[in-house]
Amino acid sequence: MKLLEDRIRQDGIVIGDDILKVDNFLNHQMDPQLFEAMAKEWKRLFEGVDINKILTIEASGIGIACIAGLEFGCPVVFGKKSRSRNTPEDVYSAEVRSFTRGTVNTVTVSKKYLGPQDRVLVIDDFMATGEASEGLIRIVKEAGATLCGVGIAIEKAFQDGGDKLRSEGIRVESLARIASMNEKDGITFK
Amino acid sequence: MKLLEDRIRQDGIVIGDDILKVDNFLNHQMDPQLFEAMAKEWKRLFEGVDINKILTIEASGIGIACIAGLEFGCPVVFGKKSRSRNTPEDVYSAEVRSFTRGTVNTVTVSKKYLGPQDRVLVIDDFMATGEASEGLIRIVKEAGATLCGVGIAIEKAFQDGGDKLRSEGIRVESLARIASMNEKDGITFK
Repeated sequence: MKLLEDRIRQDGIVIGDDILKVDNFLNHQMDPQLFEAMAKEWKRLFEGVDINKILTIEASGIGIACIAGLEFGCPVVFGKKSRSRNTPEDVYSAEVRSFTRGTVNTVTVSKKYLGPQDRVLVIDDFMATGEASEGLIRIVKEAGATLCGVGIAIEKAFQDGGDKLRSEGIRVESLARIASMNEKDGITFK
Repeated sequence: MKLLEDRIRQDGIVIGDDILKVDNFLNHQMDPQLFEAMAKEWKRLFEGVDINKILTIEASGIGIACIAGLEFGCPVVFGKKSRSRNTPEDVYSAEVRSFTRGTVNTVTVSKKYLGPQDRVLVIDDFMATGEASEGLIRIVKEAGATLCGVGIAIEKAFQDGGDKLRSEGIRVESLARIASMNEKDGITFK
């Protein structure tokens, strides 16, 4: 998606060769107009697919997922992160390792808000090694819901998360796919 | 706002006489269509006020704030919560006590995304004793930005947060104001 690629080129800050800071418009300060354009693009890509729920993860997935929910006309559920491994019985849970932070969080979703009747689009801001999306997908499966696809804003395509999911037959639609990046040469998109 | 009051009556769960669970549509599962109606109502209430930034707090403020940002046509910044009191130099910070959880969080906002040029609407899902909003307001002041008002989804008007801010001359627009509630009699709105 050219609009997003242009914005990443303009406002993204590359640190080293694997960190991309986009907190100017995506995950600290957020640009709702850009999110609306992204939501319309996911809606176009998943045209004809029967989706009745969007699942994301706190915190930075919530904004894009909510505006996607407006476009798809369906409710949005966000997985809650906690450090505790003791989860109550009324939630689905998955452990998710953060590639950038080196921490492990337990992500939980109330059983009330996900079930066999749900046809789910997973939305998240970033995909690198795919841990967060895989955690959400495990929760979708545990709930007996149907996974319709994964919508990602920025995929670090030089890491294996996206292709790992695609090789399992999961439809992954990333709006910007970074082929390579480093401080000196900037960003190349796929 | 009748639509929100009706939804609280329909889906809200009162526990004891001061806890209201609205995780069916507001802060775990979210209803973007309802958020859009709420955003339009804030837009109507703040008609004529020059607002160029929305400030909220993670996690449950992000969804409503983003959709409000779409309506107001301005960027949205969310304060990040952490348990650490050591904050880097490039952020504004405020300590916020959680009334419901009994914990203290440090809320931070990057200095890059808030400054004297900003005319800020603070948005949050709940107001009870007002600690979270007061923390965000302290950050607005520290940044030298102008506070235009506070938009709250649900105000527990039987607690003093909203009136404390109003008595300081701050404009607080709560879309549903709960006068009283308990398990037996349900909810009464102001």
